[in-house]
Amino acid sequence: MTYLLINRLTAKPGQRDAVARILVDSGAVFDDDPACLMSLVVLDAGDDDVIWVQDIWTDREAHDRAMAGPEMREGIEAAIPLLEGVPEQHEVTPVGGTSPFGF
Amino acid sequence: MTYLLINRLTAKPGQRDAVARILVDSGAVFDDDPACLMSLVVLDAGDDDVIWVQDIWTDREAHDRAMAGPEMREGIEAAIPLLEGVPEQHEVTPVGGTSPFGF
Repeated sequence: MTYLLINRLTAKPGQRDAVARILVDSGAVFDDDPACLMSLVVLDAGDDDVIWVQDIWTDREAHDRAMAGPEMREGIEAAIPLLEGVPEQHEVTPVGGTSPFGF
Repeated sequence: MTYLLINRLTAKPGQRDAVARILVDSGAVFDDDPACLMSLVVLDAGDDDVIWVQDIWTDREAHDRAMAGPEMREGIEAAIPLLEGVPEQHEVTPVGGTSPFGF
């Protein structure tokens, strides 16, 4: 079953660009993972410290496997000291709308 | 320039499904709007009252025009009494990651 997450991360002041760079770099391997339909890193225009990651995966197992890969583990280790608190992770279920994903 | 929004709506207790139905129905016109790359309505698995709408449009003007259409205006009018407070609207800027949208 499709697995969707909305992640909200708060960087320590002045560290958002560094965190975003780590997320983009360590997530580059997802480009070659057919289970990753989307993993989009975006900056909040209204809060200078907030980064969102919008994830859409074919299934939860594939997501968990990808997150446990060495690139992502290194990235997480590098990002944690630059974050304020623990990232919010919202698991969500699609009910409709427009998308290229067939749901 | 691409225009992205992460919207977070809180329904009054017991009203989430009704709000989601209104959003999906009134947003059905977006399927025929080439400026709408995504407008995905999802339910928060961890909060029974929360709905997110993840929007990706080719440009802000097209989004604003679509939101002002009669279907969406009717939908908004119908949804407002079923909501708790005012929806959070987070404008966001993509910095990278995996997506079918070329950014």
